[in-house]
Amino acid sequence: MPRIDFQTDPSRWRHWRLETGGPVASLVMDVDAGGSLFDGVELKLNSYDLGVDIELYDAVQRLRFEHPEVGAVVIRSGKENVFCAGANIRMLGKASHGHKVNFCKFTNETRCSIEDATWHSRQFYIAAVNGAAAGGGYELAVAADHIMLIDDRRSSVALPETPLLAVLPGTGGLTRVTDKRKVRRDRADVFCSVEEGVRGKRAVEWRLVDEVVPPSAWAETVAKRAREFAARSDRPRDVKGVALTPLERRVEANGITYSTLRVEYDRALGRTVLIVLGPDAAPPATLEEAKDAGFWPLRLARELDDAILDLRTNEPELGLVVFRTEGDAARVLAHDAFLERHAGDWFIREVRHYLKRVLKRVDMTSRSLVALIEPGSCFAGTLAELAFAADRSLMFSGARGGDNRAPAAVTLSSMNFGPYPMGNGLTRLQARFWGEPGKLEEAQASAGRAMEAEEADEAGLVTFTYDDVDWDDEVRIMLEERASFSPDALTGMEANLRFVGPETMETRIFGRLTAWQNWIFQRPNAVGERGALKLYGSGEKPSYDRVRV
Amino acid sequence: MPRIDFQTDPSRWRHWRLETGGPVASLVMDVDAGGSLFDGVELKLNSYDLGVDIELYDAVQRLRFEHPEVGAVVIRSGKENVFCAGANIRMLGKASHGHKVNFCKFTNETRCSIEDATWHSRQFYIAAVNGAAAGGGYELAVAADHIMLIDDRRSSVALPETPLLAVLPGTGGLTRVTDKRKVRRDRADVFCSVEEGVRGKRAVEWRLVDEVVPPSAWAETVAKRAREFAARSDRPRDVKGVALTPLERRVEANGITYSTLRVEYDRALGRTVLIVLGPDAAPPATLEEAKDAGFWPLRLARELDDAILDLRTNEPELGLVVFRTEGDAARVLAHDAFLERHAGDWFIREVRHYLKRVLKRVDMTSRSLVALIEPGSCFAGTLAELAFAADRSLMFSGARGGDNRAPAAVTLSSMNFGPYPMGNGLTRLQARFWGEPGKLEEAQASAGRAMEAEEADEAGLVTFTYDDVDWDDEVRIMLEERASFSPDALTGMEANLRFVGPETMETRIFGRLTAWQNWIFQRPNAVGERGALKLYGSGEKPSYDRVRV
Repeated sequence: MPRIDFQTDPSRWRHWRLETGGPVASLVMDVDAGGSLFDGVELKLNSYDLGVDIELYDAVQRLRFEHPEVGAVVIRSGKENVFCAGANIRMLGKASHGHKVNFCKFTNETRCSIEDATWHSRQFYIAAVNGAAAGGGYELAVAADHIMLIDDRRSSVALPETPLLAVLPGTGGLTRVTDKRKVRRDRADVFCSVEEGVRGKRAVEWRLVDEVVPPSAWAETVAKRAREFAARSDRPRDVKGVALTPLERRVEANGITYSTLRVEYDRALGRTVLIVLGPDAAPPATLEEAKDAGFWPLRLARELDDAILDLRTNEPELGLVVFRTEGDAARVLAHDAFLERHAGDWFIREVRHYLKRVLKRVDMTSRSLVALIEPGSCFAGTLAELAFAADRSLMFSGARGGDNRAPAAVTLSSMNFGPYPMGNGLTRLQARFWGEPGKLEEAQASAGRAMEAEEADEAGLVTFTYDDVDWDDEVRIMLEERASFSPDALTGMEANLRFVGPETMETRIFGRLTAWQNWIFQRPNAVGERGALKLYGSGEKPSYDRVRV
Repeated sequence: MPRIDFQTDPSRWRHWRLETGGPVASLVMDVDAGGSLFDGVELKLNSYDLGVDIELYDAVQRLRFEHPEVGAVVIRSGKENVFCAGANIRMLGKASHGHKVNFCKFTNETRCSIEDATWHSRQFYIAAVNGAAAGGGYELAVAADHIMLIDDRRSSVALPETPLLAVLPGTGGLTRVTDKRKVRRDRADVFCSVEEGVRGKRAVEWRLVDEVVPPSAWAETVAKRAREFAARSDRPRDVKGVALTPLERRVEANGITYSTLRVEYDRALGRTVLIVLGPDAAPPATLEEAKDAGFWPLRLARELDDAILDLRTNEPELGLVVFRTEGDAARVLAHDAFLERHAGDWFIREVRHYLKRVLKRVDMTSRSLVALIEPGSCFAGTLAELAFAADRSLMFSGARGGDNRAPAAVTLSSMNFGPYPMGNGLTRLQARFWGEPGKLEEAQASAGRAMEAEEADEAGLVTFTYDDVDWDDEVRIMLEERASFSPDALTGMEANLRFVGPETMETRIFGRLTAWQNWIFQRPNAVGERGALKLYGSGEKPSYDRVRV
């Protein structure tokens, strides 16, 4: 399969249309059956593959940045009688285990980004289910804040994965049914076992949808509901959006160069070095000047997002990511201060939430993450989050021979204490100091102070410190050792250790639900030669090993 | 492999010794290397298999019931230089996927039962780690409330699974390290990557153990610490325990008959019917008379526990469990009232917590659970929990032709509103009404009233009701349909739908950690011909597929 590109724009979309022009936007799903990333797969009935979801993600991002005037987004189908048939089954049958897992992860993150828009940006999503919504189709609807179902005696909502395909409704379906829709668990059990789904009054009674509307009143009621939601938004109606212009990006055989970061592959050693470059200038003088795709924090968010997605999908054998930074910590902190000073502005709010989402994507990346904090680096404020997202951080103590730059330092800012929660609702420092709340308070008191190795170590902010004598060997040994472990065991270990304590709907989707789905994606009953995913559509019935484990 | 029996008693133990005689007991692990359940497996270095853990579970139960005088239990090794080497690797290499999964589940439940004793029965466990504690050995220690490590420059604690075996420390290890011991996540990452483990001062600094003690002061300090913990217990010192006499049990080809339940296998249809029989008499007149293994709630707890464990391990192809009850609801409720009236008594406290643990074991059983509520049944109070634990409940409405018994009813008691929380901390009715708190209050107000089908349905206590005309067909169709689905998809679906909302350390162990471990137990890097579990001890190095998923 050729390299999958996560960058797109409306002029290149094949599967979605965005209709804007006022406080209500329509996002119309109209999948081009011939436009699959997979040869020989036809995306019939608005079924989707990763390519369809990449466009959806792009639309959700653009709605936030380019359309401040939009307070409500109506997701509907551009096809007759079908809203969305979910993930394409033939694609799932053909895809490698790794592709399935990464596809599900990305679609899950995209559904979470729809909820993030509703909850944190007051851009409300409404699903106008004008046809059958099955599997991933219902999971898309359930990511919206409000679900309307046309009552035409045909259209239904359904999660038929278990009876039909022997897999789970894994794009958050099971979790959102119980935790978001709060469907009673025995009814959820029935719903998830009924191929044909549920419609009409029962769909409302069981909380599967919020309302059913007769066809005669459909268009009018959807429009009315959308206006009502839009009226609840606090987004500005009469300002200009910020166009998400194409990324500055140069993809080469050994890495990718962006304006704010460099990605360097080391295929021989199975790792990639990701070097974030601090801002090249002070923040803009005024808020209005910041409103541009060139604003450093926005560039950083977009480019880091792209780099992580690219790495996950296109470089599966680089199991280790080394985070480094280069630049002027003071400028990073000045940008953090700018983000704080203007936190009430709609655009700055978007930038902050985007950074938050990208950092969550880092947490959720199944690669070993190591931060190297060296002289010349700028692990300050927002960029220090990369060190706290890492499984380990190593810090260079003192000066480097022949290097006249100041010793490495870590500096905290207020951005480390709230704006970037992990999926479990904790900041990375709260998670870090889960057992030592006193350390968290100390860290907060230290904000703004550049802490060199000894102090950072004492404060609990780094894992180990080494001086010039030991640094090279210790780093080399650690990275080599890590690369020698089983990638699967590391994936499981990291998925557990990164998320301490509380679980939220979001982490339950990526933890409990996804982990079980990945297990099922390995089981012969689903993926074996006689498994349901393989035989779907062949007319043959799957044969199951009846052993329960 | 022959049928595995979960019943044992100290006279038959081969791997543990229990030393009692005062407020402090010692539980000495001294595994008989020749006593594995698996042919050709030698349980060297206090490594264990399921048989060793069955004895441990028996010991933990007996300590609670038979030894009210014991306030502190010291777990130590009876071998030189090794505390416990964890689960036996050759056994794991030979065991089927299903056996591995069930083995891990049972050992996890046993570790949780140790914590339950500490937290709810004030019988404090202390791990006196007098030698190397690796993998499951450290996981056993970490289930205790206090970990002491001998500082002999050799003994260490370690979780070497990831580097050595390409699997996770799956008996709660990863979760307890972050959530119970509250080890900083980057240190946890280091700890779980270091084969040789951690010892001495660092083990204390990193919170892996509570204290290190020099060999010269070892015996004295352990004894002192145990006395201190025992002094904090509220258990009575001078009363007689209740002997857990052998179960009344008749195992036959088609089922098992106990004094309080009948298990009927239907192998052709892939299901088992579990019929709980209500009490044969009123509760005892006095508390003292109740203190006997014949006390109905205790018999029920023990027999149901055995039946569930037997089913999980010995009947893996019976994917569906049908719960039925027979008897007099008034007598069930009278026993519930007895359990409430004497809740402050040490023995009644034990019975209540035992029922709680058994019901949790039901929740955690990966079989589809269906309750059939019919005329002549007694789904009241404690027994109604079985209906609420079920994935679905069907209730017979009205009278049955030719049956002069009263219509089926559900009656709630105060036991449905607190004493039996699920692993996630919610009662089953709280979980059921997660989206409808008003319904929970209504249910509470209805306690004591026998609700027939229409009222129970209205109250949300049952999934569906059918009358005499439809009952047989509807039940048959539902059970047949369920039996036709993929066992794996059902396992994943049920594991998600049963646990709404909050997660606790306990559910995180059975959800996030276990689901990832089960995934890894399917991956070639662990279990393939060149996988680490297969090659361990062979002198050959495993070769890993480097793809991260």
